[in-house]
Amino acid sequence: MKNPALILIDVQKGFDLPFWGSRNNPEAETNIAKLLSVWRSRDLPIIHVKHCSVSPKSPLHPDQPGNAFKEEVQPLPGEPLFTKTVNSAFIGTGLEDYLRENKLNSLVIVGLTTDHCVSTSTRMAGNLGFEVILVSDATATFEREGHNGTKYSAAEMHDINLASLNGEFCEVLSTSKLLASME
Amino acid sequence: MKNPALILIDVQKGFDLPFWGSRNNPEAETNIAKLLSVWRSRDLPIIHVKHCSVSPKSPLHPDQPGNAFKEEVQPLPGEPLFTKTVNSAFIGTGLEDYLRENKLNSLVIVGLTTDHCVSTSTRMAGNLGFEVILVSDATATFEREGHNGTKYSAAEMHDINLASLNGEFCEVLSTSKLLASME
Repeated sequence: MKNPALILIDVQKGFDLPFWGSRNNPEAETNIAKLLSVWRSRDLPIIHVKHCSVSPKSPLHPDQPGNAFKEEVQPLPGEPLFTKTVNSAFIGTGLEDYLRENKLNSLVIVGLTTDHCVSTSTRMAGNLGFEVILVSDATATFEREGHNGTKYSAAEMHDINLASLNGEFCEVLSTSKLLASME
Repeated sequence: MKNPALILIDVQKGFDLPFWGSRNNPEAETNIAKLLSVWRSRDLPIIHVKHCSVSPKSPLHPDQPGNAFKEEVQPLPGEPLFTKTVNSAFIGTGLEDYLRENKLNSLVIVGLTTDHCVSTSTRMAGNLGFEVILVSDATATFEREGHNGTKYSAAEMHDINLASLNGEFCEVLSTSKLLASME
């Protein structure tokens, strides 16, 4: 990958609330912070994405304290930030234009949650022609219930959603494999 | 739903080839045909979407016999058809403009495959503001392998992908429940 942009999706405090149910990958934020540190040290492009829910009861609504970024990913001055109101970081934002204007064709995607905002943004990025790496242990999701009442663990949701994405929309790599490939 | 448009995604002969591995929901095409028949009998809007892969080795490439629609879903004269080259029916096509120009805000999505083109199109439809029903037994997918080599059955891929979509991007309903709600 040449000049890969690290895109951090919705790493916000509101996801720590019990509202969402049980989560997998508790180490995701540590891995995200590690990648962010590497990107900053090498002066590679970094893009922050924040979810600003239009639903007043959502922990991610701009009036809620949960809308704030987690401490691990506080943007530094000059790092671009895009806010969105839907799952995809490419809908209702200037992200695609920004990437094209800055000739950023290679993206590394991390953040929350694997199967909602991360998956949707990864799918659109791939379909829009960007080269995408999704970092398996720098994303996480929550348990979910199917339309027929079946319950699925966060780990099942995570693993199977990654299997749908890998090779079709992106390459899925662990943090350690990604960093080793950048040595 | 008011004047729901039935969107048939990639119900093409090429998906019958062993190329894709084991599939779930063998009755999907029968359910799709049933819905198509109801839509035609009530003169409700119908939209066909065909995948025209740019990869010469894909069974869905326009030069391959598998690019053809299955017999159950052959478009009738006057029924609109959109061709696409990526998973999303909304990227590189005029589908969004067509829906808005015709004031079609409610969509019923069916077709192949659950976790690739159907999921991606459903996600974008929901994020673009359309009201979406995804029909659980009028879509199907294939077994997949995760980035770490774990194999997942088609049924697992299908069920968990629907659980990620339901309530976030769409409502997931069976064919019989959908038809009952339209009585």
